[in-house]
Amino acid sequence: MPHRKSKNAEPLDAGSVPKAVVSRLSLYLRELQHLLRDGKETISSGALGSRLGFSDAQVRKDLAYFGHFGYPGIGYRIDELVAAVKKILGTDRVWPVAIIGIGNLGRALLGYKGFSRQGFDIVAAFDSDPSKSGLIIEGIQVRPIDTLAAVVREQRIRLGMLAVPAPAAQGVADQLVLAGIDGIVNFAPVTINLPPHVSRLGVDLAIELEQITYDVVNRLRVR
Amino acid sequence: MPHRKSKNAEPLDAGSVPKAVVSRLSLYLRELQHLLRDGKETISSGALGSRLGFSDAQVRKDLAYFGHFGYPGIGYRIDELVAAVKKILGTDRVWPVAIIGIGNLGRALLGYKGFSRQGFDIVAAFDSDPSKSGLIIEGIQVRPIDTLAAVVREQRIRLGMLAVPAPAAQGVADQLVLAGIDGIVNFAPVTINLPPHVSRLGVDLAIELEQITYDVVNRLRVR
Repeated sequence: MPHRKSKNAEPLDAGSVPKAVVSRLSLYLRELQHLLRDGKETISSGALGSRLGFSDAQVRKDLAYFGHFGYPGIGYRIDELVAAVKKILGTDRVWPVAIIGIGNLGRALLGYKGFSRQGFDIVAAFDSDPSKSGLIIEGIQVRPIDTLAAVVREQRIRLGMLAVPAPAAQGVADQLVLAGIDGIVNFAPVTINLPPHVSRLGVDLAIELEQITYDVVNRLRVR
Repeated sequence: MPHRKSKNAEPLDAGSVPKAVVSRLSLYLRELQHLLRDGKETISSGALGSRLGFSDAQVRKDLAYFGHFGYPGIGYRIDELVAAVKKILGTDRVWPVAIIGIGNLGRALLGYKGFSRQGFDIVAAFDSDPSKSGLIIEGIQVRPIDTLAAVVREQRIRLGMLAVPAPAAQGVADQLVLAGIDGIVNFAPVTINLPPHVSRLGVDLAIELEQITYDVVNRLRVR
């Protein structure tokens, strides 16, 4: 992996930054937002890292992919770093999101409070079951799936979240691609094929659980 | 972060392995399981890495935390490596899991097919709403929340998944701790306090979305 660095805060070619770094940026952002809410103004790389279980070198190395953010003797100015990280992650703007598949998971996603707080605005919901059309859930009207492409275009929806059963996932993804979607988060337990210009993320909840069993097993071993 | 290595496949002190490595182990495991299902028997670190977007050096370095797994001129024996990684992650056994909070998210978790496939057995469900007690959802009976501690003890439940509203999360977590739970996965958008002997994982779905906006923003920039 090339370790190119930049002197300014502009993101580089996405391919040059390891995914793990981008994923830690989200953790830094969340922690910095908490600190800001608590009225803190500055923090050192060591203090930020230790709140998350990372070394100060890790924090500095991660942020160095994107520019120079700290001040000697002061550390990071929290409001500045929050703004910079949001810009890097692309959440300095509002992203219109559609949820497709209004079963239990789709309803849970519609009601998830953490999205709007981070700039994700769920503006449309779709389901293939005609009996769900017209229902208002969490303030959003469920629309028939055959209006998907038209609504995505009209409302300039950028991201789609797939909460449909596995066999339906590829078909819905294809429709989203044709409608010009930028990215798809797939909760269906199946791999979908997308053209290279569409960003994708598969969410595998079992991976979350494996992280905790690892921790439990190793705690048991060292206890 | 210390980079201690071991000559055998026994996990080390959990604190010495970076979280990012453990998280990549899950990705390796999923890919290896796919390969095994497709009838493949061996794979090189380079081929495994390239399927996931990592370098061969990354794969080798990650696995070296836990032992020596490859064979010169052959690569990894896939069935062997699957067994070893499952042992490291602790999923070489079945984990009895309870889900607390049977709203939309709890129902979605109860129906999630990916859990049992990886060794997580949802054996109990709880809700504080008396009107839900006795309902059978995905084959699991919903029980009143005041039976939580007794059922966790009786059924030797090891992990709890919190899908309750944020204000209820700490109270339920405290009950799980008293009942002797080993780990808690918290989907509520709030930080919970747990004693150090209980493993925890907070799931923040907005982080998943930020990973994709990063990708979209950077694709747009380089296009």
